Amino acid sequence: MNQLDHQALSSLRQELRKDYDLVAGNKIALDLSRGKPAADQLALSEGLENTIKGNYRAKDGTDVRNYGGLRGLPEARELGAELLDVPAETVIAGGNSSLNLMHLVTHTAMQVGLWGDERRWQKDESPALIAPVPGYDRHYVLSDALGLDLRTVNMTADGPNLEEVRRAAEDPSVKGIWCVPKYSNPTGCTYSEETVQALAELPKLAAAEDFVVLWDNAYAVHDLEFPMRTLASIQAAAISHGTEDHIVQFASTSKITFAGGGVAFLASSERVLATLENQLGFMTIGPDKVNQLRHVLFLQGRIAEHMQAHAALLKPKFDLVLATLEDELGELDIAHWTQPSGGYFVSLDLRPGLAREVINLAQQVGLTLTPAGATFPHNDDPEDKNVRIAPTFAELSDLNAAMQILTLCVKLATVEQTLEQTP
Amino acid sequence: MNQLDHQALSSLRQELRKDYDLVAGNKIALDLSRGKPAADQLALSEGLENTIKGNYRAKDGTDVRNYGGLRGLPEARELGAELLDVPAETVIAGGNSSLNLMHLVTHTAMQVGLWGDERRWQKDESPALIAPVPGYDRHYVLSDALGLDLRTVNMTADGPNLEEVRRAAEDPSVKGIWCVPKYSNPTGCTYSEETVQALAELPKLAAAEDFVVLWDNAYAVHDLEFPMRTLASIQAAAISHGTEDHIVQFASTSKITFAGGGVAFLASSERVLATLENQLGFMTIGPDKVNQLRHVLFLQGRIAEHMQAHAALLKPKFDLVLATLEDELGELDIAHWTQPSGGYFVSLDLRPGLAREVINLAQQVGLTLTPAGATFPHNDDPEDKNVRIAPTFAELSDLNAAMQILTLCVKLATVEQTLEQTP
Repeated sequence: MNQLDHQALSSLRQELRKDYDLVAGNKIALDLSRGKPAADQLALSEGLENTIKGNYRAKDGTDVRNYGGLRGLPEARELGAELLDVPAETVIAGGNSSLNLMHLVTHTAMQVGLWGDERRWQKDESPALIAPVPGYDRHYVLSDALGLDLRTVNMTADGPNLEEVRRAAEDPSVKGIWCVPKYSNPTGCTYSEETVQALAELPKLAAAEDFVVLWDNAYAVHDLEFPMRTLASIQAAAISHGTEDHIVQFASTSKITFAGGGVAFLASSERVLATLENQLGFMTIGPDKVNQLRHVLFLQGRIAEHMQAHAALLKPKFDLVLATLEDELGELDIAHWTQPSGGYFVSLDLRPGLAREVINLAQQVGLTLTPAGATFPHNDDPEDKNVRIAPTFAELSDLNAAMQILTLCVKLATVEQTLEQTP
Repeated sequence: MNQLDHQALSSLRQELRKDYDLVAGNKIALDLSRGKPAADQLALSEGLENTIKGNYRAKDGTDVRNYGGLRGLPEARELGAELLDVPAETVIAGGNSSLNLMHLVTHTAMQVGLWGDERRWQKDESPALIAPVPGYDRHYVLSDALGLDLRTVNMTADGPNLEEVRRAAEDPSVKGIWCVPKYSNPTGCTYSEETVQALAELPKLAAAEDFVVLWDNAYAVHDLEFPMRTLASIQAAAISHGTEDHIVQFASTSKITFAGGGVAFLASSERVLATLENQLGFMTIGPDKVNQLRHVLFLQGRIAEHMQAHAALLKPKFDLVLATLEDELGELDIAHWTQPSGGYFVSLDLRPGLAREVINLAQQVGLTLTPAGATFPHNDDPEDKNVRIAPTFAELSDLNAAMQILTLCVKLATVEQTLEQTP
């Protein structure tokens, strides 16, 4: 596109404008903004309702209908252990929201300390967490709400840029790092073995003595290609570095069974679990063990099979997104995008200064995208170039229409920008 | 017993000791300590598992399996409204734990403020809550954990002593009051119309401008006698006093359906709900709406009928407790107890200085009672006289044995105390 002269660009713009106006006339309403499972995925888990069949006893004899059990049912902890690839005794099985467990951990680290000693983040005047960008907006919002600053570092195909991470951790105000280690939101990258090792070692190198790696393994088994991609075990690496007290892992079944009605898990050292259990003790009488038992009976021994059924529904959507990007933008050299083999997103980088414009253009013709900047703290994408594509919720035909519109908007905005910059 | 001389007391003690030693030989293991529903009560709600029948749509079209909806499903909010006798738009339907909602409210009042302005409890150097005693230990533990002092006031048959309450509220450090207004834990009393009116007015009279009535209506429909006992509406009273922003009500289905797998609710003004929704927004993606829908379909239009089925199981247990107390202690004038027509407890007051001794005596022969002092903040029963009896969880035959042992221990401890005090 950069090779075109002013006149050629003008006529290209005119052509694209005509297409855009045609789309505008169609009064469509499409949405690629949200990383939600589609109805056909949710239907894969309807069997959940019929698993218990009147037997409400856990294997240790617990009546799951009654109160108690702050760490969750033993068999639910085993399920979490399978997702996180850790021993069951390091797991707490909680309620329906891993975000809620992240709040528990960060809030406790802030105000109470995770280790039963005097360390707590709020003793620092401006405690901060490292946020790889682009990343997950809920991590940012939670951090903000707790008064935690965010220090951004760049994502690479292997995870966060380790040099930047290590430099950031030299500041004693920096208390931890947010990680989505497998099929990271939104880039879809999986952290390399070297990255996992480095992050497990980080609490030892960090200036802060209360540094915590927040390991949000939200897409632990959410592969699109099989055999599943393995992520190196951060727990194993932590043990070798003696940093187990400084790693907290999270997972949930939200995108395995029901997004709003699943079971969430965390894993850490006994010392950290004891602190968290103590905190839970005054906040709740225990998690919903009935739902935990439903999940155990439904998923036990068949997670891989179940996730392949999800993949069968999701792979065509990701393929369509990637094929459209390639077909429409591939030869133009005006954007690049990730090619994830799992997770929920494709990350699209435009020329600097175009993300907001493209998202606005799309919105005006009825296509809702994730708001500009959402993958950066405070919605501030410094280059204004990242667009997060969430292909899972839409039906295939809608997704096709949406991707045509998106790529059209990318081309139109890029031509207009180029025109402005061309004498 | 006071009329007996030293010798008569001695021989009575010998007799009671013999009975006690016989019991000790039986090596029983009984438990009246916990306000938990029994298995037969839980079985009343097994229909919960089969209510949805593949239709996961709420009436507003929401797919309950997916993310979202911080205030809960509209029909779940209606269910909470029915329990709390308030309009549905004042209700948030949450997860499985009303204690968790109480934590949300008190924590928010403490650190963020409930009203979107500058008021927050932590601005006071030693913020405190009023705790009617005897009362509910979980309220005390939660308050402690948040750094809230507790100022005790005495319970009467009509609710907390209003004069003491008003006097306590003259201190601007006093930020609220814990209430269990119907079948109060442990006395079983229901607050009178006058008490409800007075408590609704209290935020206007209190010195603190951020005073909150924490209305834990845990036993809203948990009647043993029908027609159900009505509690005056604190929301209606609050509207007449202009104090709606200072009343937060709580309820749950924990003792209606599954103790650990129910749905919890809170109700307050729109201003307070907006603040709480904002808080929930960074802590969770929403409550388990699948479980909310299960509960709506199962309980809708049949709460009274369902609670009568609970009552049919519970009434014989309460009758047995009261009959045994009357038969064994009635004429001795050494104890008095409440006669609740609902709820989960009977409160037994012994002669001062005997509660710990009786609870120890019982424990030594295999009967576990609620720990001494548990119904007071910091486990400090100043007269050491209150014993909380929780008759619901035990089977009837065990309950009978337990009550025989409890009354025997009461008699033995009282005789021994009297002997010590008799020249």
